[in-house]
Amino acid sequence: MEVVDHLAEERSKAEFDVEAMKIVWAGSPQALEVSDRISKLVASDPVFRKDNRPMLSRKDLFKNTLRKAAYAWKRIIELRLSEEEAAKLRFFVDQTAFTDLHWGMFVPAIKGQGTEEQQQKWLPLAYKMQIIGCYAQTELGHGSNVQGLETTATFDPQADEFIIHSPTLTSSKWWPGGLGKVSTHAVVYARLITDGQDHGVHGFIVQLRSLEDHSPLPGVTVGDIGMKFGNGAYNSMDNGVLRFDHVRIPRDQMLMRVSQVTREGKYMQSNVPRQLVYGTMVYVRQTIVADASCALSRAVCIATRYSAVRRQFGSQNGGPETQVIDYKTQQSRLFPLLASAYAFRFVGEWLKWLYMDVTQKLQANDFSTLPEAHACTAGLKSLTTSATADGIEECRKLCGGHGYLCSSGLPELFAVYVPACTYEGDNIVLLLQVARFLMKTVSQLGSGMKPVGTTSYMGRAEHLMQCRCDIQRAEDWEKPRAVLEAFEARAVRMSVACAQNLSKFANSEEGFAELSADLVEVAAAHCQLIVVSKFIEKLQQVIPGKGIKQQLEMLCNVYALFLLHKHQGDFLSTGCITAKQASLANDQLRSLYSQVRPNAIALVDAFNYSDHYLGSILGCYDGNVYPKLYEAAWMDPLNESVVPDGYHEYIQPMLKQQLRGARL
Amino acid sequence: MEVVDHLAEERSKAEFDVEAMKIVWAGSPQALEVSDRISKLVASDPVFRKDNRPMLSRKDLFKNTLRKAAYAWKRIIELRLSEEEAAKLRFFVDQTAFTDLHWGMFVPAIKGQGTEEQQQKWLPLAYKMQIIGCYAQTELGHGSNVQGLETTATFDPQADEFIIHSPTLTSSKWWPGGLGKVSTHAVVYARLITDGQDHGVHGFIVQLRSLEDHSPLPGVTVGDIGMKFGNGAYNSMDNGVLRFDHVRIPRDQMLMRVSQVTREGKYMQSNVPRQLVYGTMVYVRQTIVADASCALSRAVCIATRYSAVRRQFGSQNGGPETQVIDYKTQQSRLFPLLASAYAFRFVGEWLKWLYMDVTQKLQANDFSTLPEAHACTAGLKSLTTSATADGIEECRKLCGGHGYLCSSGLPELFAVYVPACTYEGDNIVLLLQVARFLMKTVSQLGSGMKPVGTTSYMGRAEHLMQCRCDIQRAEDWEKPRAVLEAFEARAVRMSVACAQNLSKFANSEEGFAELSADLVEVAAAHCQLIVVSKFIEKLQQVIPGKGIKQQLEMLCNVYALFLLHKHQGDFLSTGCITAKQASLANDQLRSLYSQVRPNAIALVDAFNYSDHYLGSILGCYDGNVYPKLYEAAWMDPLNESVVPDGYHEYIQPMLKQQLRGARL
Ligand SMILES: Cc1cc2nc3c(=O)[nH]c(=O)nc-3n(C[C@H](O)[C@H](O)[C@H](O)COP(=O)(O)OP(=O)(O)OC[C@H]3O[C@@H](n4cnc5c(N)ncnc54)[C@H](O)[C@@H]3O)c2cc1C
Ligand SMILES: Cc1cc2nc3c(=O)[nH]c(=O)nc-3n(C[C@H](O)[C@H](O)[C@H](O)COP(=O)(O)OP(=O)(O)OC[C@H]3O[C@@H](n4cnc5c(N)ncnc54)[C@H](O)[C@@H]3O)c2cc1C
Repeated sequence: MEVVDHLAEERSKAEFDVEAMKIVWAGSPQALEVSDRISKLVASDPVFRKDNRPMLSRKDLFKNTLRKAAYAWKRIIELRLSEEEAAKLRFFVDQTAFTDLHWGMFVPAIKGQGTEEQQQKWLPLAYKMQIIGCYAQTELGHGSNVQGLETTATFDPQADEFIIHSPTLTSSKWWPGGLGKVSTHAVVYARLITDGQDHGVHGFIVQLRSLEDHSPLPGVTVGDIGMKFGNGAYNSMDNGVLRFDHVRIPRDQMLMRVSQVTREGKYMQSNVPRQLVYGTMVYVRQTIVADASCALSRAVCIATRYSAVRRQFGSQNGGPETQVIDYKTQQSRLFPLLASAYAFRFVGEWLKWLYMDVTQKLQANDFSTLPEAHACTAGLKSLTTSATADGIEECRKLCGGHGYLCSSGLPELFAVYVPACTYEGDNIVLLLQVARFLMKTVSQLGSGMKPVGTTSYMGRAEHLMQCRCDIQRAEDWEKPRAVLEAFEARAVRMSVACAQNLSKFANSEEGFAELSADLVEVAAAHCQLIVVSKFIEKLQQVIPGKGIKQQLEMLCNVYALFLLHKHQGDFLSTGCITAKQASLANDQLRSLYSQVRPNAIALVDAFNYSDHYLGSILGCYDGNVYPKLYEAAWMDPLNESVVPDGYHEYIQPMLKQQLRGARL
Repeated sequence: MEVVDHLAEERSKAEFDVEAMKIVWAGSPQALEVSDRISKLVASDPVFRKDNRPMLSRKDLFKNTLRKAAYAWKRIIELRLSEEEAAKLRFFVDQTAFTDLHWGMFVPAIKGQGTEEQQQKWLPLAYKMQIIGCYAQTELGHGSNVQGLETTATFDPQADEFIIHSPTLTSSKWWPGGLGKVSTHAVVYARLITDGQDHGVHGFIVQLRSLEDHSPLPGVTVGDIGMKFGNGAYNSMDNGVLRFDHVRIPRDQMLMRVSQVTREGKYMQSNVPRQLVYGTMVYVRQTIVADASCALSRAVCIATRYSAVRRQFGSQNGGPETQVIDYKTQQSRLFPLLASAYAFRFVGEWLKWLYMDVTQKLQANDFSTLPEAHACTAGLKSLTTSATADGIEECRKLCGGHGYLCSSGLPELFAVYVPACTYEGDNIVLLLQVARFLMKTVSQLGSGMKPVGTTSYMGRAEHLMQCRCDIQRAEDWEKPRAVLEAFEARAVRMSVACAQNLSKFANSEEGFAELSADLVEVAAAHCQLIVVSKFIEKLQQVIPGKGIKQQLEMLCNVYALFLLHKHQGDFLSTGCITAKQASLANDQLRSLYSQVRPNAIALVDAFNYSDHYLGSILGCYDGNVYPKLYEAAWMDPLNESVVPDGYHEYIQPMLKQQLRGARL
């Protein structure tokens, strides 16, 4: 195909330096260099092709995943890639696989919960992939309620072993990624029982399969749990089911950093604080927030480019029709998602910092900020994953009919992304945790306890409960202070109102249960404030590059005012703004969309995604959509023959009125 | 498996007569009888099994669809089913197929746009399926903008024929269901050109394939456009691509009811009014609204039953944990969807009536209500399909991790449903049409023109602009009058405000474009009012059966107050209600949820869906979820062998550190 950049004119409209924005998005020039280099490496290697993925059968898809994983590992070794580069490579291969869990959960679990000794024994094996591990927590009957897990690990002092057992059907491990077909080992969460006493859920390293021939060890029943949402998508992963029939493991395979069982069978706590586990959670959720900005930006990139290519209606005198990106309805759906992608990127960056901060404090035995950090990451995980899941589907709809084709890339992106709303904490359950923390914070306001971190605005509750928004013209909404105060006032007022309603209940747990739907809204308001405030903080940094600051200010404003418009009811009912001010915000939003419009394509180019990574005909860099769609269609297996398989048995007898006698 | 009704206790809690509610849902005792009988017929026939559908390759799935379609047709003939019964049978077979378009679009197009003669010639062939037809309108380059289609039909007076041609790549027909592999004929929309003059888009009956061997006729290039969203789902349909290279058809294959081309090549309008086409649109969209209530109720049935089976947290003294349906957050997400399913059912019923009413009026040459009926169906199509698509996904999330499995049925239901937001009019484009109609209605208010039908409340604009809501206690929100007036006031005030903003623009088209995002919100407010008001009207009918009326009143209230809460911002900013009243509505909503709770299972039982139709382990009637999930897992192709295909090539070399030399 002739290579013409159909979006060249769009690109020429940009009012900022795209290369500088690429650095902002990547985080640093060095990060951009790595990401660019590895992305090209993957894109240019035929083994990593993925354009036929949706057409593969489950078995072929799975085999292909094994191939890619092995090949990626081979390349990582051959090229002596650093840890960062290796992670990037897996990221750009873009096929969910057992390695995600091996590196993302198995290794961190051992690091976080294993003793020095255990780490020394197991980590080198894992680092070389001489063993492959997964994270086996969830069971058929229990996911959110980890404390309710039923698998047992009973200590047998005679043998100095634990007996791992699945006492009921619902105690079957169910969901762990990589478990079904690949993992040789698992960190298994089970109720620790010593001398008839139940000590609750603990982690154990359990070997599942022979390292010789991969057959499951005696007492281990293991398999895949079956197809999941979408073509391709998460079906490349072997989420598994696992049952134990009195499987014995040595005592030293209990992860003993925080608590131990001694040779005599005594259960003991070490002097390492339990809160350490929160550190791991903060880490994992921080990566989920970063992933959200990737997934959303990818969908937005596709929808934005296609919206500039697609023309529909509005042709005058036989001229070209209007690009759909010029419709205000399209802009009002698309641009807030573009802004959200940037917002999530920056809050993700900040979370990375938070994790380091928390880790340092933990090492210094300072646990003061941990509950706040924990609530904050839980809330941000919930907010960003929900918004991203919805946002991807909205991007798909923004592409009209063609978005429904697998070749648009959006169906698979959606299907593979949505479980992020469920795993690592169901999003509603997480918001309830945030709400609980907020109610506690409010209740302590009088007591002189100073709220820290992302709740510190609550320390100004008195002011925020009665302040008045002084916006008088649409442009006044450009002032970060005014925006921030409106969000703070809304969050505080909703929190306080809920706390007051709670106090009317004799039993506070009952009150919490009864008002939980409201509490979720309170938590959401708080989390939105965090994202807005971190975006505003980001703008206070020095960010070099022509026009960059202006673009980011514009996006920050779009994000905040879009939220304000969407949740107008909150702002109005708490009296934080007036109806007139809400309407001015809406006017301002409209004028911001016009400012985004000429920069839209460049703003998605700044993600620096290769066509390979995007995996979308609608989103291809050159915008040459129609010929590519047309050519791709003919690749479908159904087009292998002109007359379809089944014609003679089924169609012909129907047309010829010969069904009566037919055996079908 | 032992058959125990795990939901028996739930069923015993119902405060109404489920059998009577089944009749309400079905529409009449007779409709229930038919539906129940046909549903059982389908469920008991092994040919119609669909539990392995998500695992089939595209080709196998397609062949299976051909088989089911042929077999269904055979059964229809053998059992001499009536038209209603045949349609029900296809409905319960529940596999999207070319027959949907044949019966749902091809036949109605000929009926609506063909002359008497044409109908006599073509309909008998279509009725017997001696020909199979599709509806070929959309092209690669044009969907929403039908007037922009590029395919040409040029009249050749010499031969008395039309020459159908695809002049550009973007003029390729693209999307028509049933086109890719099956249809022998199509109604093709093309620009009519006589004597060099372009008369715009018209419909033509074009034969595509030989009736002898199914090969495409000369000049016809046809194929499938490739995989679409999801496993199974819409991939059973052969949405097609079609190009014409100067294909000739006789003149009498132009659909000539409304306009004709004479033997001499003269273009003429008949005395049949053009508006007739709107009649067909009203018909098709009415079926879409009915389908929305089916799809949503199905998802709600699954999520409700599973929420009663699933227990998580809250065990006291070793007793059972809390059913997740008892969590207020779960209720606040689920019950509004349950109420929506009922609301859409009733508005769908009313649309059926509207269609008949419009048809009668058309026959009497009365076009007065047509624009309003058209706007109303466009709006309701948009509202119900958007809400249903979102609702299905919410139901999936309500099922936690297990909802992500194909065996939950929800992923496929979502994937097969979502294009309803796009086909038959993109939902945003439709809302803009509604908005246009509303602005026109507002502008004529002063002129003495009386708004009709669903806009008649605008005739009371003066009152509604200044009325005050008199709610003082939560229970006051039970009064339908108060609810209705709040919705009417909101819709009028938003309309009028938008009209005023529009009037500030010198060029009204520019104004419309600039304010289009607001206009979409106005249209949505109007459509929500329609659904609420039709639900309230339904309650004014006599509806027999113990407790039925109460249940419906409760659901109506849930639906309305849920919307009010969700769109609080609208109600507050227009001053229709106060913040205090909004908060009372929320209190009332909470107490309504408690009233729904004991009836929830019975309310979904009333849909009378068989386990076959539901196609969901999580939603199975007896609630015996876990053993069924466990057994289904082992059916996955990946579990055919314990050691996966690819182990020797990829996993073993990795574990054994032998990748360096390996050829992968
Ligand atoms: C693709 C995918 C990959 C996964 N990978 C792994 C893995 O590698 N290892 C692993 O161990 N697990 C894994 N999981 C499991 C995952 O962690 C759980 O599914 C998740 O924790 C949610 O738990 P659940 O499924 O039990 O949901 P449930 O808790 O059953 O949720 C059902 C509904 O109940 C509601 N609910 C539950 N509790 C409450 C409450 N207290 N208050 C209000 N509402 C409530 C929820 O909001 C939800 O609407 C994976 C899951 C998926 C989908
Ligand atoms: C599963 C499926 C089955 C189908 N079956 C058939 C069939 O049998 N026969 C057939 O002929 N067609 C069929 N179609 C095609 C379908 O009718 C079109 O996809 C639909 O009309 C939408 O048009 P589009 O794809 O051109 O969207 P576009 O118009 O390109 O929409 C893209 C975006 O532009 C926006 N937009 C477009 N115009 C405006 C405007 N004026 N103002 C503001 N925003 C605008 C839309 O809101 C959307 O966000 C099918 C499609 C699907 C997905």
